[in-house]
This record gives sequence, structure tokens and C-alpha cells, in this order.
Amino acid sequence: MATITNHMPTAELQALDAAHHLHPFSANNALGEEGTRVITRARGVWLNDSEGEEILDAMAGLWCVNIGYGRDELAEVAARQMRELPYYNTFFKTTHVPAIALAQKLAELAPGDLNHVFFAGGGSEANDTNIRMVRTYWQNKGQPEKTVIISRKNAYHGSTVASSALGGMAGMHAQSGLIPDVHHINQPNWWAEGGDMDPEEFGLARARELEEAILELGENRVAAFIAEPVQGAGGVIVAPDSYWPEIQRICDKYDILLIADEVICGFGRTGNWFGTQTMGIRPHIMTIAKGLSSGYAPIGGSIVCDEVAHVIGKDEFNHGYTYSGHPVAAAVALENLRILEEENILDHVRNVAAPYLKEKWEALTDHPLVGEAKIVGMMASIALTPNKASRAKFASEPGTIGYICRERCFANNLIMRHVGDRMIISPPLVITPAEIDEMFVRIRKSLDEAQAEIEKQGLMKSAA
Amino acid sequence: MATITNHMPTAELQALDAAHHLHPFSANNALGEEGTRVITRARGVWLNDSEGEEILDAMAGLWCVNIGYGRDELAEVAARQMRELPYYNTFFKTTHVPAIALAQKLAELAPGDLNHVFFAGGGSEANDTNIRMVRTYWQNKGQPEKTVIISRKNAYHGSTVASSALGGMAGMHAQSGLIPDVHHINQPNWWAEGGDMDPEEFGLARARELEEAILELGENRVAAFIAEPVQGAGGVIVAPDSYWPEIQRICDKYDILLIADEVICGFGRTGNWFGTQTMGIRPHIMTIAKGLSSGYAPIGGSIVCDEVAHVIGKDEFNHGYTYSGHPVAAAVALENLRILEEENILDHVRNVAAPYLKEKWEALTDHPLVGEAKIVGMMASIALTPNKASRAKFASEPGTIGYICRERCFANNLIMRHVGDRMIISPPLVITPAEIDEMFVRIRKSLDEAQAEIEKQGLMKSAA
Repeated sequence: MATITNHMPTAELQALDAAHHLHPFSANNALGEEGTRVITRARGVWLNDSEGEEILDAMAGLWCVNIGYGRDELAEVAARQMRELPYYNTFFKTTHVPAIALAQKLAELAPGDLNHVFFAGGGSEANDTNIRMVRTYWQNKGQPEKTVIISRKNAYHGSTVASSALGGMAGMHAQSGLIPDVHHINQPNWWAEGGDMDPEEFGLARARELEEAILELGENRVAAFIAEPVQGAGGVIVAPDSYWPEIQRICDKYDILLIADEVICGFGRTGNWFGTQTMGIRPHIMTIAKGLSSGYAPIGGSIVCDEVAHVIGKDEFNHGYTYSGHPVAAAVALENLRILEEENILDHVRNVAAPYLKEKWEALTDHPLVGEAKIVGMMASIALTPNKASRAKFASEPGTIGYICRERCFANNLIMRHVGDRMIISPPLVITPAEIDEMFVRIRKSLDEAQAEIEKQGLMKSAA
Repeated sequence: MATITNHMPTAELQALDAAHHLHPFSANNALGEEGTRVITRARGVWLNDSEGEEILDAMAGLWCVNIGYGRDELAEVAARQMRELPYYNTFFKTTHVPAIALAQKLAELAPGDLNHVFFAGGGSEANDTNIRMVRTYWQNKGQPEKTVIISRKNAYHGSTVASSALGGMAGMHAQSGLIPDVHHINQPNWWAEGGDMDPEEFGLARARELEEAILELGENRVAAFIAEPVQGAGGVIVAPDSYWPEIQRICDKYDILLIADEVICGFGRTGNWFGTQTMGIRPHIMTIAKGLSSGYAPIGGSIVCDEVAHVIGKDEFNHGYTYSGHPVAAAVALENLRILEEENILDHVRNVAAPYLKEKWEALTDHPLVGEAKIVGMMASIALTPNKASRAKFASEPGTIGYICRERCFANNLIMRHVGDRMIISPPLVITPAEIDEMFVRIRKSLDEAQAEIEKQGLMKSAA
């Protein structure tokens, strides 16, 4: 077998990929026949593929490459740390400097008394940690019957069996099964589910489902509520303004832990270090990953408040991953945070990129296919609809229209994702106004082509 | 805050660690008061700490640093890949060369038709993947009622809620809860549980518990059996020779999937590429992590046979991790495999290190504290006992004696781990005979000191 490199012909790479590589969230037999696109290199917001195409990555990899691709500083830090100490565990009364330094930095950046970090390999593992952590917390407080975690339909909290059970994706539940003591309330998705209510009325009603669930399940049984400040993989669903203050009130009233899943929202995505700051809420635990290292190294974790850390610290916490606090990943994450901070990337988001993106994004509602356009910082979504006034869904299988639109984006060398019939973006935070302009040229071209295709296929029909 | 580096005084590093870093499998409040040991650098089988001590790492980090610390080649590969393509996802019909090349290499190394790789961030995530994979397999085969996975008490399969439910560690179950449809049979630990049976008779009896469980649960309900070829974190428990052939016979007879957890046993640890080869079994799925990258980068996965890959590939597999096939981690793993292969490290294990280690390890039974000494390749355990003839347990709380022994090892700059009252090692595969000699100087000194301490505390007593 010849060495496999970027210089092999695309068809040979595709054949090897089909023969040996099982892709996530894919129908692998069909994918193998169709052939994958081989990404070979990247810089800033731009990807190259094995055919020499230049692709604008409006998803930042998978919501993670916040500082953009190609930052040599991270490569240098990774190599230096790998030479010095490529691995050591933190289990048996040992530690190392990258884990200490990253934990200290995260405590400094996190709001309030979120001062303690438990490291994991990514967001799935971190949310899985949170389940054991909140249950252990209540056990150590003498209330072992508080085991139920309330989450939301259409939430995404990871792909382990337990973190996907926390999430609200039915297709994932169907394949793996659920776990005991997780309960789902409805999401604050006004466009799809708001009916005749106005958005603020609807936001309040959806928040109050948390209170109803607590009363129904029993206050003495509920351990925590988990939510993304902005639902990401669910389709960049932005709750009405009335929602979060009411959620905070309910968590306070019933003394349940609030877990904010910041895997997508964290590290500048919403214009603040954390989405909870943008939404004005006070979590006891924040889940972090993705932007923590800008995806350059696999790392995640849970940032925990003083009270939770103190209570779980009273006794042995029977939990941990081999790669908890991995020294190379921790060193890379720390360098990523240095760049975010020293280059004032959050200022770029707040003062330059996000306002410009918002103006152009919201203007997309002038397109015939686009119903609502929602945006918070550098994450945004549009709802595709056959009828803006009635907020109608398409008559076709959900996702059919979104998929057509996504395929047009890919063909136009734009990475934009569909979730059902919503289109979403989450570009690198460092994107420039000129790159935003180029992105919108491709978005509008793709929407126009999608519309033509939808009309050609006779799919411009509302569901009954 | 000054930059946190290896050059800070130990006490300051310990204070920061205590203030912000929650350690895995620890009682963190007490640990913070006691203070952690700060590992600063490493080379070969040797660690340095912030006090300038040289420590012999007989655990290879956490069973993972198979090629030893300080290999510059991996640092160079990591930096090169990070400059070229630091991250891209493999979800949306895209791929990249490091994932392709690593998948191809693993298919080449793995026995039989284990030709397909689903990547994860580590062993916990990979075993979690396996749960969804085997359940999806049977759903796609039209047998959705086959959901039960049989595992073993005292097994270790990871720390997510679901992978720890697969595992057989009661302390983990108590804190997180279990998941539905996992069943545990007894382990083949003759020393602790063999009673009056001879080892081979006992091995057969324990294997037949699998058949009994299948018949009890219903053949139509059982999806898979999962086991480590040698139980690692359970205490390096080596099954009697009679065990694995009988397990294989039962899996074949009842058409259930066999999952071999190779997280510890894989990549040369037992003297072959995989522990299943050493044990002569034919799994449908192998879990891999740790030695896959020698721990230099967080990566794991599942290697899957043709039949399972084909069946789950028929439809959308609703599963995946952001860091599945992470390009930098994949490139590092590939370089690690190149070193293992081109430097003939498995030959070193088979012809040099393992035979020499075995001779000296088995001779430890001349020590008053040591009952049995078990070894397979480069993983080994001794049972501490107050009475060799009766295989008695100590009267003290299980683990008390092992902990005393481990603390003596640490004080003698030897990393050896205790599991209950068993002491275990799993050194880097590249360890030399001279280093093995030095290791045994420290082991024997530590055992002698432990014995003195145990006698001084009046703990040399058998349980009733």
C-alpha cells in the first residue's frame, strides 16, 4: 500500500474512505457509493478540497474553529508540549502544568463563582460527566432521590447514550435507547410551534413548562435543568426575550441546579465569553468544548461553581476519562484562549463582524423562501417556508427542502448546514466584512438555485 | 496572574491546582489539602516532577504510552497536521486524509474482516458507540428486541454513564445510575472467587454463566457480549485457559455479537497487535484507544467487521462526535503505529521485554505478601494476601493494604497502581532489561516497606 497523502487522486482517496471509514450521522453504504469530498487544507475561513476548490466554511468546522484555521502558534505549542510531556494522567494524586493553567484561566474567564474545572475529551463526555456530577451532588447533600434531569425536546447535548438521552433528538433515542430519570419539556421555538401566540407570550409559556414539570415530577425528585443558551444543532433556535428570566426564576424558586451547555455558545460565539452572559442567567455548571480549543485538539469539560465543587469534593467522585486534562490538548486550548483575548476577537465580534452579519442576515427575509431570520452574535438561522404569513411547513418530508438548499450551498463552495428545513451558519469569529460579503453572494445564489429546484420539483407546497 | 509554568514553586502550583482543578476518581477536598504531585516532563519510561525527582512509570501513563514518552516524531507530525488542517468534521459527506489513512492502517492490522473504523475521542466514547451500534445492527436486521448487552462484574469499559453501566464497577453505578438492558455475569477471577475449584474448572464454569444468562434473558433479547481480553482496571485479571474458547463457542452458538474491549490490550500490550489474537477469539467489534496514539493525542474508536458495517450502513446511523477522526489525533496515531511497526516493538515485547519481565514477575511469589503473580505480555498483577495457602483476603477494608503498598511505591519513585489489594503494572513496551531490573529493585523495596508498615499497623490478618 502506497503512503496515503493529499496528493493521491480523489477517486482513490474516496475508495479507501468508503472501504474503511464509517462516517458519523451518515448512511454509510450510500455515502460510499456517492463518494465523500476530501478536505485537504484550510486557512482563516477557507477550506481546500482535493479537487483544488476553495470553500467558504460558514460552519467553522462544526461550530468550533472560532479563531479560524491555520494558526501556527497552536501548532508550535502542541509540538512543544508533546516534546516536554505528551501525556500524563490526573487520577492518582498527580497533576501537570497545562491542566492547572487551563483550569485557572477558565475560572478567571467564567462568570460568578464558576471556579472549578472537570476536564473531558469533548462536549459529549462533559455532559455525561454532568449527569454523574449532579446526581452525586444531591447524594452528598443527603437527597439521593433527586436524580431527574429536565431537558428540552430538540436539544443537542452530545452523542453518548446518556448525553443523547439528555438531548431531545428522537432519531438518536430510537437507536440507543434512553436512560432513566430524564424528562423533556418543549422548546421555545416560536416559528415552528408558536401557533397563535405572540413570541413573548409563547416564550413565557414554554418556560413555565419547566415549573409544571417540576411540580408533576415532584420537587424532591428533580436534580437539574440543562439547556443550551441558544439551541445549536436543533437549528439555532433563539428563545423569545421572556424565556430565560422565567427559567432563572423557576430554577431559583425550586432549588434545582442549572446546567448551561456552552459547547456551541461559549468562547465568543454570542459576543460574550459565554452564552449565559448574553442571556443573563446564572448556571451552576457550564459544559464547554469546541471553541475551547477552536477544535485544534479534542478537549471539553465542566466549569463548576464553588458550592457544587465543594459538595462533590467531600467524597470520592467515581468518574474520569484517560484524557481528562490531556496536557497537549490543554496547552493548545490555553493558547487558543490567549489568541481570543490578546487579539480582542470578542471586540471584533461585537463591534465589527456580528453587527455587519446581522444586517445582512436579517435582510434575507426579502428572499421568497425565507421566513424568519434569527441571529445572536455569530450564530444564525433562517426558516425556509412556502408561506411566510402563515409560517407554513413544507408538505414534503421535513428536511427535504433544507437538504436541497444545502446541496446547492456545497456546490457553490459554501459550507452552510440544514437542520430540517432551517439553514444555519456559525462562521469563524475572525471572518472579515469582505468575507461576509462573499458569503452572502454564495448564500443568495444558493437560495435562488434551491428555489428554482424546489419549484421544478413541484415542492413549493404547504403542509396541510 | 503570572504565567503558570513548570518553573513556579511546587506549593504555588499545588495551590492553583487545588483551587481550580477537579481530579478524576478523587476525593477532591482532601486531595486539595494533601497536595498533588506535579509531573513536569518525561522521556522513555521516566517521569520528572516539579521537585526534580525521577520516577519510573510502570503504568505507561494510564496503560497508554506504549512507545514511551518523548518521541519527537509525533510532535513533528502533530505540528505539521495542525498547520495543514487542524480540524475538519467527517459528518456531512466530507472526509480528510488522516482519517482515511488511519482507518486503512487499522483495517490492515486488525485480524479477520475487521475492516471498518468508527472514530471516537477515547475508550469511553467508543464503548458508548458500541451500544448504539449493536442495537442499531439488530434493528436493521429486523430484530429490534435484541437490546441486552451482557458484560462482567469488575469489568471496566469507560466512564460515561452508559459505558460505566457496561462496566462492572459498583461505585460508579451508585453515583450515576444504570441504563436499561445491561446484564452482568461474574468475572473469571480464580484467585478471589475460585473457591475449591481448580482454575480450569472455574474458568469453564464462569464462561458458562454467559450461556445461562442468554437462556435466562432469552436468546431473542441478547444483542452482544462485551469483555476485555484481560481485565485491566479490574486488577489485571487473567482468565484460566479454559475460559475464552468456551465464550467463543457460546457466542457462536447463540449468534450474539462479541465485542472485545482492546483499549488496554491493544497495540502490543499482550505481545500481539490485539489481545483477541493472544486469547484466540474472533470479535465482531473491537474497542480501541490508549495505545492507538500512545496517549499523545486523545483518540479512540471501534473496529467493525464487514457484516456489522454493512448492516448499520444500510440506513442513517444517528451517532457521532465532533472529534470523530480528528485530523491531528489521527495523524499522531498513524505515526505511533508506524513507530510500533517499523521499530519492531512487538518483537521487542515478545522476544526481550515480556519474557524477562515474566521471569522476574513470577519470582515475586517468593515475597511474603505476594499470593499469585499473573502476567500476559506487558501487563501484570500480584495478589497481596495474609495467607498464600488459603488465598485469604485481608481483614481490613479492601484496598487498605494495596493503598499502603502503592504509597510506598510512589515514595520510592515507582508508579505502580493498586486495585483493591492487587498491585498492577503496565509499563511502556519499550522498557529495557536494565530498566526492568531497576523497576524490580523499587518493587521489592516497596513491598518490603509495605510489609513492615502492615505489620506495624497490625493489619497482617485474614478476613473471616
